[in-house]
Amino acid sequence: MNREEIRQLLENYKNGYISIESATDQLSELPFTDLGFAMIDNHRELRTGYPEVIYCEGKTVEQVKSIMEAMIKKNTNVLATRVSKEMYEVVKDLHPNLEYNQLGRVITIKVKPVTMTESYIAIVAAGTSDLPVVEEARETALILGNRVEVITDVGVAGVHRLFAKLDIIRRSKVIIVVAGMEGALASIIGGLVSQPIIAVPTSVGYGANLNGISTLLSMLNSCANGVSVVNIDNGFGAAYNASLINHL
Amino acid sequence: MNREEIRQLLENYKNGYISIESATDQLSELPFTDLGFAMIDNHRELRTGYPEVIYCEGKTVEQVKSIMEAMIKKNTNVLATRVSKEMYEVVKDLHPNLEYNQLGRVITIKVKPVTMTESYIAIVAAGTSDLPVVEEARETALILGNRVEVITDVGVAGVHRLFAKLDIIRRSKVIIVVAGMEGALASIIGGLVSQPIIAVPTSVGYGANLNGISTLLSMLNSCANGVSVVNIDNGFGAAYNASLINHL
Amino acid sequence: MNREEIRQLLENYKNGYISIESATDQLSELPFTDLGFAMIDNHRELRTGYPEVIYCEGKTVEQVKSIMEAMIKKNTNVLATRVSKEMYEVVKDLHPNLEYNQLGRVITIKVKPVTMTESYIAIVAAGTSDLPVVEEARETALILGNRVEVITDVGVAGVHRLFAKLDIIRRSKVIIVVAGMEGALASIIGGLVSQPIIAVPTSVGYGANLNGISTLLSMLNSCANGVSVVNIDNGFGAAYNASLINHL
Amino acid sequence: MNREEIRQLLENYKNGYISIESATDQLSELPFTDLGFAMIDNHRELRTGYPEVIYCEGKTVEQVKSIMEAMIKKNTNVLATRVSKEMYEVVKDLHPNLEYNQLGRVITIKVKPVTMTESYIAIVAAGTSDLPVVEEARETALILGNRVEVITDVGVAGVHRLFAKLDIIRRSKVIIVVAGMEGALASIIGGLVSQPIIAVPTSVGYGANLNGISTLLSMLNSCANGVSVVNIDNGFGAAYNASLINHL
Amino acid sequence: MNREEIRQLLENYKNGYISIESATDQLSELPFTDLGFAMIDNHRELRTGYPEVIYCEGKTVEQVKSIMEAMIKKNTNVLATRVSKEMYEVVKDLHPNLEYNQLGRVITIKVKPVTMTESYIAIVAAGTSDLPVVEEARETALILGNRVEVITDVGVAGVHRLFAKLDIIRRSKVIIVVAGMEGALASIIGGLVSQPIIAVPTSVGYGANLNGISTLLSMLNSCANGVSVVNIDNGFGAAYNASLINHL
Amino acid sequence: MNREEIRQLLENYKNGYISIESATDQLSELPFTDLGFAMIDNHRELRTGYPEVIYCEGKTVEQVKSIMEAMIKKNTNVLATRVSKEMYEVVKDLHPNLEYNQLGRVITIKVKPVTMTESYIAIVAAGTSDLPVVEEARETALILGNRVEVITDVGVAGVHRLFAKLDIIRRSKVIIVVAGMEGALASIIGGLVSQPIIAVPTSVGYGANLNGISTLLSMLNSCANGVSVVNIDNGFGAAYNASLINHL
Amino acid sequence: MNREEIRQLLENYKNGYISIESATDQLSELPFTDLGFAMIDNHRELRTGYPEVIYCEGKTVEQVKSIMEAMIKKNTNVLATRVSKEMYEVVKDLHPNLEYNQLGRVITIKVKPVTMTESYIAIVAAGTSDLPVVEEARETALILGNRVEVITDVGVAGVHRLFAKLDIIRRSKVIIVVAGMEGALASIIGGLVSQPIIAVPTSVGYGANLNGISTLLSMLNSCANGVSVVNIDNGFGAAYNASLINHL
Amino acid sequence: MNREEIRQLLENYKNGYISIESATDQLSELPFTDLGFAMIDNHRELRTGYPEVIYCEGKTVEQVKSIMEAMIKKNTNVLATRVSKEMYEVVKDLHPNLEYNQLGRVITIKVKPVTMTESYIAIVAAGTSDLPVVEEARETALILGNRVEVITDVGVAGVHRLFAKLDIIRRSKVIIVVAGMEGALASIIGGLVSQPIIAVPTSVGYGANLNGISTLLSMLNSCANGVSVVNIDNGFGAAYNASLINHL
Repeated sequence: MNREEIRQLLENYKNGYISIESATDQLSELPFTDLGFAMIDNHRELRTGYPEVIYCEGKTVEQVKSIMEAMIKKNTNVLATRVSKEMYEVVKDLHPNLEYNQLGRVITIKVKPVTMTESYIAIVAAGTSDLPVVEEARETALILGNRVEVITDVGVAGVHRLFAKLDIIRRSKVIIVVAGMEGALASIIGGLVSQPIIAVPTSVGYGANLNGISTLLSMLNSCANGVSVVNIDNGFGAAYNASLINHL
Repeated sequence: MNREEIRQLLENYKNGYISIESATDQLSELPFTDLGFAMIDNHRELRTGYPEVIYCEGKTVEQVKSIMEAMIKKNTNVLATRVSKEMYEVVKDLHPNLEYNQLGRVITIKVKPVTMTESYIAIVAAGTSDLPVVEEARETALILGNRVEVITDVGVAGVHRLFAKLDIIRRSKVIIVVAGMEGALASIIGGLVSQPIIAVPTSVGYGANLNGISTLLSMLNSCANGVSVVNIDNGFGAAYNASLINHL
Repeated sequence: MNREEIRQLLENYKNGYISIESATDQLSELPFTDLGFAMIDNHRELRTGYPEVIYCEGKTVEQVKSIMEAMIKKNTNVLATRVSKEMYEVVKDLHPNLEYNQLGRVITIKVKPVTMTESYIAIVAAGTSDLPVVEEARETALILGNRVEVITDVGVAGVHRLFAKLDIIRRSKVIIVVAGMEGALASIIGGLVSQPIIAVPTSVGYGANLNGISTLLSMLNSCANGVSVVNIDNGFGAAYNASLINHL
Repeated sequence: MNREEIRQLLENYKNGYISIESATDQLSELPFTDLGFAMIDNHRELRTGYPEVIYCEGKTVEQVKSIMEAMIKKNTNVLATRVSKEMYEVVKDLHPNLEYNQLGRVITIKVKPVTMTESYIAIVAAGTSDLPVVEEARETALILGNRVEVITDVGVAGVHRLFAKLDIIRRSKVIIVVAGMEGALASIIGGLVSQPIIAVPTSVGYGANLNGISTLLSMLNSCANGVSVVNIDNGFGAAYNASLINHL
Repeated sequence: MNREEIRQLLENYKNGYISIESATDQLSELPFTDLGFAMIDNHRELRTGYPEVIYCEGKTVEQVKSIMEAMIKKNTNVLATRVSKEMYEVVKDLHPNLEYNQLGRVITIKVKPVTMTESYIAIVAAGTSDLPVVEEARETALILGNRVEVITDVGVAGVHRLFAKLDIIRRSKVIIVVAGMEGALASIIGGLVSQPIIAVPTSVGYGANLNGISTLLSMLNSCANGVSVVNIDNGFGAAYNASLINHL
Repeated sequence: MNREEIRQLLENYKNGYISIESATDQLSELPFTDLGFAMIDNHRELRTGYPEVIYCEGKTVEQVKSIMEAMIKKNTNVLATRVSKEMYEVVKDLHPNLEYNQLGRVITIKVKPVTMTESYIAIVAAGTSDLPVVEEARETALILGNRVEVITDVGVAGVHRLFAKLDIIRRSKVIIVVAGMEGALASIIGGLVSQPIIAVPTSVGYGANLNGISTLLSMLNSCANGVSVVNIDNGFGAAYNASLINHL
Repeated sequence: MNREEIRQLLENYKNGYISIESATDQLSELPFTDLGFAMIDNHRELRTGYPEVIYCEGKTVEQVKSIMEAMIKKNTNVLATRVSKEMYEVVKDLHPNLEYNQLGRVITIKVKPVTMTESYIAIVAAGTSDLPVVEEARETALILGNRVEVITDVGVAGVHRLFAKLDIIRRSKVIIVVAGMEGALASIIGGLVSQPIIAVPTSVGYGANLNGISTLLSMLNSCANGVSVVNIDNGFGAAYNASLINHL
Repeated sequence: MNREEIRQLLENYKNGYISIESATDQLSELPFTDLGFAMIDNHRELRTGYPEVIYCEGKTVEQVKSIMEAMIKKNTNVLATRVSKEMYEVVKDLHPNLEYNQLGRVITIKVKPVTMTESYIAIVAAGTSDLPVVEEARETALILGNRVEVITDVGVAGVHRLFAKLDIIRRSKVIIVVAGMEGALASIIGGLVSQPIIAVPTSVGYGANLNGISTLLSMLNSCANGVSVVNIDNGFGAAYNASLINHL
């Protein structure tokens, strides 16, 4: 509520168009309204078809179930990440559109249609072991209304495979690179394209990989420009970020 | 060179329009042409006014000077980062447009005009100690043709200062958040806006800050969506990335 | 026993009011009495209703059981932390007042009433995954005789939720902030209040969170004043500390 | 401004006691007023004699000087930490009351008197090398209006020295423990007293001390209750925190 | 396809020996051919009897099984590492020559004979706990066509055992040293021989061993010349590397 | 074999007292004899009643069993550490004197008597959770022929308990200090005694304890003299070391 | 003062042999006497010729100078470690016997003779770069009254040099091993001797040596028995420890 | 000296061809001869033209100078690494053939000719900042008698530059890859060639590069086969290793 609207409200109240109760209510919430951007953002998000997101790690099945029920009741599309098989078994009958991507450990419930972008996000992965993170990113991107192209198994140990797919990568609007081990794929692609790249280090590796820390450090030190990084195995975060960019 | 062009070349050769030498030359370079994206990208970059970038850390003054001279000769705008005062003294007379931002340790040489974007990048910094990184980001963004709005000293220790500036942040197309210490600013802003955020951890702090590692980890673990991260103190990288997004 | 008391004792002995055995006994324990502050503190603690605390991690069920039995026999209130479900099953019939907080993994046995403070401790938590630590802190604070107000799910990703609860936070005497991930909540609150804050990093997060180390570092680097930190997931320690302050 | 005050303002406006301009002004600032706690806190702080604090590391001499001048003009007491000798030389004539504690690297300017507490903060330090941190804490505590007792050189390698000083430690309201190396002093004292302890790890040590990280970890793992920790060498933070507690 | 071959193709096309379609096809793939070294390398590898390698960690049994089936169909020798007992049970009947080394967690399928080198690789291990890594290395070396000599239990705690075996070590062409704990064996041998040494740190140890990181660091800091290092527990990598050297 | 013995052997051979075969044999083994100290040490150890030690972690039950059988056959006392309950069940009938200390996870088999020292090793532990390490140390010390005094639960959180036991600690010849968490006990005792102290950090703790790394660092940084450190949880190593000192 | 002595004192007082003042005095100091071990230890140390030790890092020249003067006045031998050349220049004329070991950065002042042990400490170092630590250890051992044998440059890269010196090492009573890089020397010697070994990791190395952390970890993980470890570059601590053992 | 030689010596002695003194001497040194491999290796090395290597870091100018003089006197080629400019100034006149590579900080003195290999070592570097390490490797390789080809500035940010140089890389016998930042070059090349690769991480980078640790970890986790790693900035070690392989 801006200054002009406040002035208007005051006059409306003085003129008796609105009661003192109503005026007090609205003005009491002013701070909240001025602070309440996130809430307004939520509204905007709901309007634009963005679903709420449920991060299930560390939540009980009961908590997850009741959040889903509330969202379905509010006619909101649902995206739930890090969903175990056991959790899925409990909630699977909540809605006929509920779908479980077991590899990506993601549940989506489309209670209303999603408008898809013209442009697409390219999700490029180094190896088959990175697929769970790819799937989490892909499901996230889809329910956020993005077209997606997935290119996998193009790790730098056989870089010609990457070159064969370069066209499809280059036609994207934004690129997610998913890789474990030394994470060199982000740098290679960074040297070959001019789109923004969101790199997701995965915990694929062993020993000195340090559960993905090594990959994370590698990506942060990329000598290629245009690469930014999210947390290890954070397919959701990369896709959310890419979706923001893809919707620009 | 695509399939159709190859077919055309073959026919041109058969028809005698080009010699076998010329055909062999062009085709010999096919791989290079197919590989040579980066070079083509360079051309495109030059065309779009993107300057070459010289990272001066670990280069001698002589090396930097001769690279600058070559670029000026090629009529290319110059962006040089991590330029010490001493280095500046040696190169300052290379071109009348050469400018040195001492705080940001950046040299720019605009040998030709840069077209600026309508939309702008918001660079938001927590404190005055983060200003060197802000300046590196700002100079980078500017020479890459981006309008920039800088908002500083809005760290979370006095979060009302941030709210007072929220409008200008929200009207940007993409946001760079520069912060040291616990780096909470990235998360706060991430909860308040719907633009992509590129977070730059700075090495501002002491003790358990671990030269910015603590800030870096904090930003990677942001509970807010839409935040991706670049290396510590990497103002250039953040601005390059933001410029890619701002030009979409 | 101060100098004057010793002199008195000597005279009492010389005058035959106390036997040499009794004098020797008391004086033999002088060092112990002078050193034995902790013991005296224990007495004082028991007097002031402070319970003994049993940290159960790494203790056998039998050890825990016999400590509890001994404490009940001494008419002492019992606080046991990190109690597994299995351990609870074994000890649950020790006393009719025994209660198990499964989420917080805490057993309390109030064998005698606890006097509660006027002022209260605010326990503020970022998300639902932090609740086990919140519960450990809450149970600890309660049995140490503190009124408690718990505010949860006010993480910085939707900071307006925090502002809506600020009043209740500000009326407390001391604040415990429980957060995982980037732990920014401690800094935000630190910038908004003037009470001492005890921050508890939780191991909620993944990847670069490093089991809470990232959160811990973030809180130690808080740019807000008035924040001190305890070990990761140490809800008990935070509440014990807060209780000391709340009783001042 | 609470709900009742808003209602009152509305009625005042309707009754013509205040103009629409004035009502709009006040209500426009409602959010700000509701948000503007920090500012209000600042007012309160100024009222209560709390000085602004200037952290000088990473600020230029000019920046520090102009902040000090502004504060003196506002009749505010000044506390500046991490002040180098060079910086002091530049600002030393700003005010006749300006004092420089070279060991603690602290400048204080008392432009108006500070009311001191009855109760005192005990600052206990392990060794002489910890004195710079002790001095930073002491100066901070003093200008924040706290009586202070400093006990040094009571490290655990000769624990009888500590016992000789225990009385003075125990009569304090809150204790700051400053120690490097293995930081055992915090645990020892924690086992001997019932006050809240704020532990400051110092970077005193070498090799496996890791510039204080080892001490920090040690203090976070203290087996004694009632110990919370601030950043390495953060004497200011400990004293600020202790002052909050000492003023309860 | 080199320059001469391109010229030849052009003439063949002009002379009508090959159609424009065929010429276009071949030339379209030139980049790929020029880039496609890895593929050509694969061909060479197949020619030289080098098997494909399947790293089974993070692959499903089904994925592993179908890769093996494809390789058997292509008449390729199979080497699969990190094969669990469960995985083996599923694939064990794929081929009569399939063999499972349970200690080394390796499956090999020799569908065609392997030519062995004259020279041999010495695999030297410190203790019996290092045997799984030794076995992975040994199986890898064997199927890559290398003679192998294994010397175990010659750790530095009883260095005379090493000296008794020095002859056999010295007659090798390249040496793999497998050790955990402090990894001193690599340095000792490095000081006694003049062959290249590939050191494999193992995760054998506890506490400050940090799952092999300590051993890894130790080997990287070897004061002996001629020692290079691979990842922790990476018996395969060491043997692959040694095989490259042994085949020179 | 020293120079004089070689000269003697040569003369014996020349004089025909020994054959050329015998002389060659003995001289061929000279290097081995000169190198073979460890073996000679073994002999000496066996002579002095020192048992072989079997570290069972990472060994199969079968390996352990056959080593034990061989040692019993050689009439050697057996010490096996890190023995799981399962392993014990398999080997328990190997010898009537076989004893299993379940808490310490140690098996001892005294096939011949051990001569005990006059002086004793004091094993001092901070808490009950450190008992497994204490027991490993105690069993090791005993079978190596040392008298042992164990003092537990004297952690610094109640330091008067330590003082009550100081006499028994001070009468020892060498002290083993076992502690987790902040490990301050080593420093406290180091300041109170003049014996050599071997500190064993334990992995008792959580969060920032980092599985004992924090304790290890703390002990390495002890401000008290006379403290040396062994690996985390290495009760065996500490006792072996203490035994060497106690036998001086 | 034990129980019997207290009883005696009481009777002496009653019998009038001592005044009530004297009795009160003695008994007042009982706690102190019971606590005052460290002080008593100091006396004992002075009696046995053990000098006070001044760790000069982080002390000012003035502080060091006045401590030395006080010690000389008390007729105490002086050992000062980590003494810079500049510090030496200031104090060099304090006493005619003052000697400065520049390499070891140690000052010793023998104001009275030191009785030397029969047995000796062997200080064994890997390379010439370890000599500063060797010298600190040697000077410490000497002034504490120990005979010393120094063997240097016997690193494992040429292990035969070590074997040539083994006799002199084996005849010692206790061994200090000083090594940087991978620190293997401690393990090698540990496998060859039966004396206690105190290992000193040095910060000699680069890159992955991590300023000696790598060496420290290596030594803590030694597969040889009888090795305990002190802090990085802590030659003093190793020698102090060895002296305690050598005097047993 | 093998068994047959010993027998021969015995007979020679018996037959009076050699004196008992001579026989005793030779046999006394047997162990040394059998142990003295390193020494024999040294001889062999000198014979094969391998120079002694002087690592100058942590050595004084005087030490370096006298080692060089001794080597020149022994007619040995000299390789000295990590030589500062100051050190060079002192020793530069020791020999007319002394040459200083300032970038690589290497001194070589060829007092006798070096035989060069037919095959060559390829040294491939990512960027110009890696050149000091390249030069150290190149000088080492040259004086060890290897032909060398250096390819620089082929980092992955412009991977087409690498492809243009692939031929020369592929014709080498062994490859050294020198890279900082994310070190991806090692993996890329590893996927393109079939030679053994020795990767040298450099400390080129900042922030999360952690002085090369990030690069080191990246290279250890390379998904390409055939890559082994040496310490950060260890150009000498890589070249020494490569020379061993190149001479096979």
